[in-house]
Amino acid sequence: SKVAIVGAGAVGSTLAYACLLRGAAREVVLHDLNKTKVEAEALDIAHGIQFTPMGSVRGSDDVAICAGADVVVITAGARQKPGQSRLDLAGATIDIMRTLVPQLVDVAPGAVYIMVANPVDVVTYAGLKISGLPEGQFFGSGTVLDSSRLRYLIARQCGVAVQSVHAYIAGEHGDSELPLWSSAMIGAVPLLQWGPTSDGSLLDEGVRASIASEVKNSAYRIIEGKGATNYAVGLAVVRIIEAVLRDEHRVLSVSSLLDDYLGISDVCMSVPTVVGHDGVGRRLVPVVTETERYGLARSAESIRAVAKQFGF
Amino acid sequence: SKVAIVGAGAVGSTLAYACLLRGAAREVVLHDLNKTKVEAEALDIAHGIQFTPMGSVRGSDDVAICAGADVVVITAGARQKPGQSRLDLAGATIDIMRTLVPQLVDVAPGAVYIMVANPVDVVTYAGLKISGLPEGQFFGSGTVLDSSRLRYLIARQCGVAVQSVHAYIAGEHGDSELPLWSSAMIGAVPLLQWGPTSDGSLLDEGVRASIASEVKNSAYRIIEGKGATNYAVGLAVVRIIEAVLRDEHRVLSVSSLLDDYLGISDVCMSVPTVVGHDGVGRRLVPVVTETERYGLARSAESIRAVAKQFGF
Amino acid sequence: SKVAIVGAGAVGSTLAYACLLRGAAREVVLHDLNKTKVEAEALDIAHGIQFTPMGSVRGSDDVAICAGADVVVITAGARQKPGQSRLDLAGATIDIMRTLVPQLVDVAPGAVYIMVANPVDVVTYAGLKISGLPEGQFFGSGTVLDSSRLRYLIARQCGVAVQSVHAYIAGEHGDSELPLWSSAMIGAVPLLQWGPTSDGSLLDEGVRASIASEVKNSAYRIIEGKGATNYAVGLAVVRIIEAVLRDEHRVLSVSSLLDDYLGISDVCMSVPTVVGHDGVGRRLVPVVTETERYGLARSAESIRAVAKQFGF
Amino acid sequence: SKVAIVGAGAVGSTLAYACLLRGAAREVVLHDLNKTKVEAEALDIAHGIQFTPMGSVRGSDDVAICAGADVVVITAGARQKPGQSRLDLAGATIDIMRTLVPQLVDVAPGAVYIMVANPVDVVTYAGLKISGLPEGQFFGSGTVLDSSRLRYLIARQCGVAVQSVHAYIAGEHGDSELPLWSSAMIGAVPLLQWGPTSDGSLLDEGVRASIASEVKNSAYRIIEGKGATNYAVGLAVVRIIEAVLRDEHRVLSVSSLLDDYLGISDVCMSVPTVVGHDGVGRRLVPVVTETERYGLARSAESIRAVAKQFGF
Ligand SMILES: NC(=O)c1ccc[n+]([C@@H]2O[C@H](COP(=O)([O-])OP(=O)(O)OC[C@H]3O[C@@H](n4cnc5c(N)ncnc54)[C@H](O)[C@@H]3O)[C@@H](O)[C@H]2O)c1
Ligand SMILES: NC(=O)c1ccc[n+]([C@@H]2O[C@H](COP(=O)([O-])OP(=O)(O)OC[C@H]3O[C@@H](n4cnc5c(N)ncnc54)[C@H](O)[C@@H]3O)[C@@H](O)[C@H]2O)c1
Ligand SMILES: NC(=O)c1ccc[n+]([C@@H]2O[C@H](COP(=O)([O-])OP(=O)(O)OC[C@H]3O[C@@H](n4cnc5c(N)ncnc54)[C@H](O)[C@@H]3O)[C@@H](O)[C@H]2O)c1
Ligand SMILES: NC(=O)c1ccc[n+]([C@@H]2O[C@H](COP(=O)([O-])OP(=O)(O)OC[C@H]3O[C@@H](n4cnc5c(N)ncnc54)[C@H](O)[C@@H]3O)[C@@H](O)[C@H]2O)c1
Repeated sequence: SKVAIVGAGAVGSTLAYACLLRGAAREVVLHDLNKTKVEAEALDIAHGIQFTPMGSVRGSDDVAICAGADVVVITAGARQKPGQSRLDLAGATIDIMRTLVPQLVDVAPGAVYIMVANPVDVVTYAGLKISGLPEGQFFGSGTVLDSSRLRYLIARQCGVAVQSVHAYIAGEHGDSELPLWSSAMIGAVPLLQWGPTSDGSLLDEGVRASIASEVKNSAYRIIEGKGATNYAVGLAVVRIIEAVLRDEHRVLSVSSLLDDYLGISDVCMSVPTVVGHDGVGRRLVPVVTETERYGLARSAESIRAVAKQFGF
Repeated sequence: SKVAIVGAGAVGSTLAYACLLRGAAREVVLHDLNKTKVEAEALDIAHGIQFTPMGSVRGSDDVAICAGADVVVITAGARQKPGQSRLDLAGATIDIMRTLVPQLVDVAPGAVYIMVANPVDVVTYAGLKISGLPEGQFFGSGTVLDSSRLRYLIARQCGVAVQSVHAYIAGEHGDSELPLWSSAMIGAVPLLQWGPTSDGSLLDEGVRASIASEVKNSAYRIIEGKGATNYAVGLAVVRIIEAVLRDEHRVLSVSSLLDDYLGISDVCMSVPTVVGHDGVGRRLVPVVTETERYGLARSAESIRAVAKQFGF
Repeated sequence: SKVAIVGAGAVGSTLAYACLLRGAAREVVLHDLNKTKVEAEALDIAHGIQFTPMGSVRGSDDVAICAGADVVVITAGARQKPGQSRLDLAGATIDIMRTLVPQLVDVAPGAVYIMVANPVDVVTYAGLKISGLPEGQFFGSGTVLDSSRLRYLIARQCGVAVQSVHAYIAGEHGDSELPLWSSAMIGAVPLLQWGPTSDGSLLDEGVRASIASEVKNSAYRIIEGKGATNYAVGLAVVRIIEAVLRDEHRVLSVSSLLDDYLGISDVCMSVPTVVGHDGVGRRLVPVVTETERYGLARSAESIRAVAKQFGF
Repeated sequence: SKVAIVGAGAVGSTLAYACLLRGAAREVVLHDLNKTKVEAEALDIAHGIQFTPMGSVRGSDDVAICAGADVVVITAGARQKPGQSRLDLAGATIDIMRTLVPQLVDVAPGAVYIMVANPVDVVTYAGLKISGLPEGQFFGSGTVLDSSRLRYLIARQCGVAVQSVHAYIAGEHGDSELPLWSSAMIGAVPLLQWGPTSDGSLLDEGVRASIASEVKNSAYRIIEGKGATNYAVGLAVVRIIEAVLRDEHRVLSVSSLLDDYLGISDVCMSVPTVVGHDGVGRRLVPVVTETERYGLARSAESIRAVAKQFGF
């Protein structure tokens, strides 16, 4: 299996590293316009191959290196700067996609495409339209990372393993995103009925709001501290890649084109979705409160508003 | 970390193998009265160490090999024969525990004890009393295996990854066990609202009943076909061991002493439970229907009835 | 990737288990004439899928289940009985191959074939001829297991990790096999110059002879103790499967058709060999003493003698 | 098990990531003077914990976070700048150690210490003296990374798996380092007798010299391309950590205090060494040519010369 990663910045190269460490793919290629950098990243990773499951990694500034890939991940784009909202980045990145996506589809027409560049929902929508591919084959990493952050915070608060927390962030990967509290579970217990947490407090509205806000602001906080986020997103995207390559039918909150999902259509946005070999399948409709349903609708609008500004 | 496995039969030796393959423990020891067999099993596994994370395995008919273990797993017991109900095995196995458990507690007083021998709930209760250990430190593998079977069947029926199915079998590991349908989820969707499954049928009462019955009868069917069950139970118990050794606080349906759990007390039985370094912690109380609550009470009674016959 | 395992006995089903535990293949199928048994083994393994990387396993008595496999492993054969030499088993197993191999080649013509049934060298030779496949595509597990046993014993004696011992058993998988002592290394040190071992003794001819004899007699000893060997061989064969599926070009002592290898031709026998996607490649010629060269020639003759008795 | 990583720069944080991805340690802590950065790195990694074996990671500017660690890795130091030789960095980094090492020994007196900061041999020697710890307990990552680079290049040239190449770089981690060609093996074949490689050329002196020079200059080249090296070194150090935590007795070319090793004494330098729970054990003496022996002596002198400049 071959994974092509476009953009060898903080996210792309960490993703290549995580891919090989986990043995998720046999062949990883990195493509970036910056030839010196992409070759250096690939070489640095390649030198560690002795310590991983068998794999190979190469880097090139020629897009042809992506030929025949099973999965293409696009991380090319401007890096989020301190203070900058995700939506501010849209224009530049969409312009990149106008040239890049057709080149990629040309050399890897059968690949499943995973967009990571921000603002991921808008850029996924633009990329999908530019690509002309079936909607199932082109989607964004969406809120898989945000859901992972949510679970981490709930797990810590409740004193349980993060793997026993089943909860999703849905909507925009950005300011209008929202946790689906009413369907969240810890083991077999609805999160809303959890009772006292490890510090004795209840998971009441106040605590939940502060968790939600911490999830939303995590990226800003990390970017302030270290200039980029790369580690968790690398793992989140490997998870998606594995769901595709191993045909897992795993439920992941990726961002894909919605069609009458709780009344929402014609926007790429994250909802719990079955991901397998052909890309995205069934979108799952959880039980939602009116507030949650309204929040999703509002998030969709906010994404659509940006997309329109760029003619999509 | 050191794991001691008592009983090197089909279950015990497969468990030792799975432990080393996953790197769950650095040191695995097998103890069995049958000296030739236990040494042969250990040797056969040891020869494969080149292909696993670093580990070691030794076998002995001397219980002293278990000294200082962090986890002790007890699989010593009579093997279930075709046609024999799990409860029929109780007497002989409890008798084994009367001699064995004090010997083990003697050499490994600080270990967490995991009972696997059947009928696991009754034998866990007896073992706990015999051991004199705190209740958190001595529990049974319970329905972790049954829950895994349930998830497998639901996953197949619904066309999703088994890792996206969150569902538990509770009660006795045996004929009176029951799936907690009303708290079961697929991704963010209550299982009871799943809609059409991969073959077009609904997950209605009929389909659910047939899944529940297949779970219950799996062991019988496998034992008829191959004389024992060992592979899935090996993995299920490794999962529990990992939860202990890595202090995971993972929610697992192990069998432990209940105290006013939905009104049920003084019986070892499986419910979703937080498992970590000190053994079992908080027992989680899911939302249950009246039928489920009644089923759990009935299952508790059925276990208690057997225990009483043996003076516990 | 799809791995087909023919024969769901002790070796075949343990191999299927190890395959899924390590995530070596996405799809594993088991084929055995014994329908009840093969279905029970597959079901028992399938129930543990929740705890492994995504995979699937099915069992059938219909050879068609092997269709389109990337790798076919043949473990069908008579089980070695206590006291029985490996060469005694030849006739019955070769007869099985006359029917079985053409059926398999029919449904999986592009697969790489790995023979495990004993006496593996003779049966590999017979199977290769029956199959009509290119010699690179059909080989035996040979002495990969024996080499692993050798390394285990050296590692224990010398107090180093088994992964730091580089040593091979070559020749027949059986009584005439021999360690290639003069090319064996521990880290960067020739084994023949190791100096005092962990118990103070030297790795002199006596110690080496006793290690060689322990390797040779391991199988007999384990079979006496537990009736079969299955755990280490399962891991050894997974290692070979991984070398093929991940195109590793790993050096493994598999049994393949030799052509003027140190003067030896027209026999299947184990020597250090590069294994990758297309099966066996370059056979490596180590530095050998005259004694080792003679031992290899003698081993080849002993295999050829048996093959001839069965018309190959 | 607890691993403390001091310095949360490119190397330290990548190492923490690799540690958790591989499940090498249950608890990882990062310590750095830069509070905002160390907290951001830890948070970014922590958000991905859902996708790894159970683990935890925290970051702090207070050295007390390292208390009770089993292993302490020191990556604090100046980053190598383009054009700068490794030896140029010595002064500043040794000064850091004068304050840092006593603080660390204070809170983690029983830990095994692994120095990574460059020039690693000199800084290890200084750190060892400052620490007052037994020599086995304090060593440097040395040429584990360089050996991994060497194997990667040989593997590619010869068309075999990197895991089948057994070769070491010894001496200084720096300009005077040298491959131990005469003990290098591919499978069971001495590398010096390998014959034609995958491109038809021989592994003659010219090819070997160019490989050796590529290894030596890798770091410079990667630093020019991306400003740091972090991926392969992260994996190399995880390998060493695993050797300690799992008590592997693995042969690794770490840098430790030599005492009459081929006549070399009182210098920290890399040679093939057995690494286990107590740190470094037996140093292995390979067969060397006169040129290799001379190269090692020269390398030792070059390290000693620098150490002396700083009063060690
Ligand atoms: N979706 C998420 O959860 C998530 C999380 C983190 C970051 N991101 C996004 O990922 C993107 C990458 O982030 P980063 O930190 O790696 O940025 P970065 O600036 O470090 O790397 C971006 C790379 O893309 C390359 N690039 C630009 N145009 C290209 C083109 N046409 N073809 C090939 N390569 C090109 C650049 O040379 C650069 O190396 C950003 O858009 C960021 O906002 C998304
Ligand atoms: N809880 C579960 O989910 C589950 C699943 C499968 C099997 N089981 C149970 O596990 C137990 C073991 O099953 P098996 O198939 O491995 O049986 P087995 O007969 O193959 O092995 C039992 C082993 O225990 C040994 N033994 C007996 N008394 C002993 C003693 N006092 N000390 C040490 N060793 C002793 C025997 O020599 C034998 O080797 C059975 O009770 C079975 O019902 C439980
Ligand atoms: N090469 C090695 O290193 C090595 C190591 C161990 C065992 N072995 C060999 O592996 C073989 C299997 O050993 P085992 O312990 O699993 O034996 P086993 O008797 O437990 O299993 C053999 C299985 O093959 C099945 N079988 C027989 N004929 C068949 C056919 N025509 N089609 C499909 N299935 C058929 C049988 O029903 C049985 O289930 C033996 O030949 C043994 O000597 C080799
Ligand atoms: N041995 C090898 O194989 C190898 C390979 C690569 C890098 N390195 C070396 O590793 C070191 C780190 O490299 P990097 O790229 O991560 O550098 P970096 O500059 O990115 O990180 C160094 C970190 O150390 C911190 N630091 C400085 N003084 C400290 C103190 N007293 N206490 C705590 N933290 C302190 C800094 O704040 C910084 O975050 C360098 O010396 C580099 O040369 C060694």
